[in-house]
Amino acid sequence: MRPEKLLTPGPVCLHPAAREALAAPQMHHRSRPAEKVLAALRREAARVAGTAGETVVLTGSGTAAMTALVSGLFEPGSRLWVPVAGKFSERWAEIAAAAGMEVVRTEYGWGRRVEPEDAPAGVQGALLTHSETSTGVLQPLPELAAAVRAASPGALVVADAVTSFLLSELAIDDWGVDALAVGSQKGLMSPPGLALAVLGPRALAALRPAGYYLNLQRELRAQQKGQTAYTPAINLVAAAEAVLERVAADGLQEHLRAKRAQNESFYEIGLEAGLRPVPEDGAERSPATAAFYLPEGAAADAVSGPMLERGWRIAGGQGPLKGRIFRISAMGYLEEAELERARADFAAVLARL
Amino acid sequence: MRPEKLLTPGPVCLHPAAREALAAPQMHHRSRPAEKVLAALRREAARVAGTAGETVVLTGSGTAAMTALVSGLFEPGSRLWVPVAGKFSERWAEIAAAAGMEVVRTEYGWGRRVEPEDAPAGVQGALLTHSETSTGVLQPLPELAAAVRAASPGALVVADAVTSFLLSELAIDDWGVDALAVGSQKGLMSPPGLALAVLGPRALAALRPAGYYLNLQRELRAQQKGQTAYTPAINLVAAAEAVLERVAADGLQEHLRAKRAQNESFYEIGLEAGLRPVPEDGAERSPATAAFYLPEGAAADAVSGPMLERGWRIAGGQGPLKGRIFRISAMGYLEEAELERARADFAAVLARL
Repeated sequence: MRPEKLLTPGPVCLHPAAREALAAPQMHHRSRPAEKVLAALRREAARVAGTAGETVVLTGSGTAAMTALVSGLFEPGSRLWVPVAGKFSERWAEIAAAAGMEVVRTEYGWGRRVEPEDAPAGVQGALLTHSETSTGVLQPLPELAAAVRAASPGALVVADAVTSFLLSELAIDDWGVDALAVGSQKGLMSPPGLALAVLGPRALAALRPAGYYLNLQRELRAQQKGQTAYTPAINLVAAAEAVLERVAADGLQEHLRAKRAQNESFYEIGLEAGLRPVPEDGAERSPATAAFYLPEGAAADAVSGPMLERGWRIAGGQGPLKGRIFRISAMGYLEEAELERARADFAAVLARL
Repeated sequence: MRPEKLLTPGPVCLHPAAREALAAPQMHHRSRPAEKVLAALRREAARVAGTAGETVVLTGSGTAAMTALVSGLFEPGSRLWVPVAGKFSERWAEIAAAAGMEVVRTEYGWGRRVEPEDAPAGVQGALLTHSETSTGVLQPLPELAAAVRAASPGALVVADAVTSFLLSELAIDDWGVDALAVGSQKGLMSPPGLALAVLGPRALAALRPAGYYLNLQRELRAQQKGQTAYTPAINLVAAAEAVLERVAADGLQEHLRAKRAQNESFYEIGLEAGLRPVPEDGAERSPATAAFYLPEGAAADAVSGPMLERGWRIAGGQGPLKGRIFRISAMGYLEEAELERARADFAAVLARL
């Protein structure tokens, strides 16, 4: 078996700029070069998110940023709307409950679109999922944010952008979204271990001290001075910053178009083979991953097994979709020739199903 | 100026085994190789700590492990003894206060030894610092643990071993220490971003659910099944595991002896130059770093400036010692010839003070 390459919806194959940054000798986090990459990452991430606000860099997974945002923006007991349509929207509900919030849930089937008209009145905030990685649905974030703000004026809108950042357009200030959670191992094409909390102007104003390690207010103050509250994963800061810089140089819009096209090419192959996509009618496909139901009666590894034999790791389903779907993603860095080979292998595997 | 090499008390120059692991293609965290390195790191870390218990791997800095241990082992309102003799023992007090604990402080001057006879009665736990990196003092952890347990039977003893792990002997089950916090960027000679919470048998029994991202109980359950609750910094898991394996193969005792001797060689040079060590009389020197007061009237960068010109980054002081001391550390990986050059440069810089 060849060493596997990742076609999973995170972690992903690393961008060459990330690999280059990671090969450098260990940098000290309290040095001029470290201050420089930290400042650049904070600035560029806010720019990609489309906000005049700021980025707080956290050492942890995307879930660390989600946890920090909930406690840092809302007092315990706040009523928060959580529309649940997959594993990661379910995670918002778990995090909010663990932080002592009153969770106002709306349930959707996994694979369904969250409906803006369901946004409730009388909530202090909404915890939304932009790209629901467990189903491959891109939720209508601008419409959802507008609906939340109309139904509950003053509510803060927080979104999980873990698999939409650098993959789908973001313009959070224009959309009325106040904060985003981002992870390094998805669109940033870097190793896992770094999280970003992007804060728009209203979120910055609402920030409250909460917790210790994941205290966003404390981190923000330190980072505004070019430092961090605790030793950061500075190697990952350098890697993620290098990728952002490269994508900006190549052109963000062109990058987003290419990523969407790569993902759609997997959908074309699956649809041609007669597979049913996980995103239901009316739901937009996320550029982060293609997701298909396995044919009736097929084994859970009917696609992932032969793909792994060909050197490609893809992902299965989670929660109620475990054993019933597979997910294949072009989020990571792949040369065009590799991607061509991945597509050919995918088509060949589906042909033998 | 040459690119700098780190003689700082963390981060440190990376071990070649860590660099090799980090150069590998991105691994998926839900794969057989990932399960294998995670299990090996958990097992080997517990062995190095000297416990029959278990290790929980967290993605975050050492402070993440400290935060998780306080909330995961003690109910809010618990009385916890925190002897404060430097920046990192002060951090324990801050973490405990932020988690709603009742902190029973004993104050010592920075550079002083914490006295076992000060252990109070009637506490539910003690938060101790084994190697106080801000002063270079190795606190008498076995004696402190015994004193705590004698004065407050049933108390849990938790120690910050961030700069004693792989640098000084640990035998926590024998000593009556129940849990340790460890970071990747010190004795493990890996990049920052990974933390370990080592739990002895009593700590395992006391574990309670707390928080979301830093919930040790949830993480432990996942890791006992070979998984993690959230995407881990798997690249750092592989790096730290590779270093532990190499150190074990070379012989842990010999490694500890070599690290102590390297640190003592910096003390010899400083003492010969007439400098006053930060650890006071009666305090043991930590093998993690040598720490000296600057001569009366010297600029804060009187040593660090010329060392940096020679390609070596050393550290200054923190808190009340800022601008008054410097710290130089051989924790990281250096070939013998490099270390020889570091020593010669250090002696030359001190000679011109």
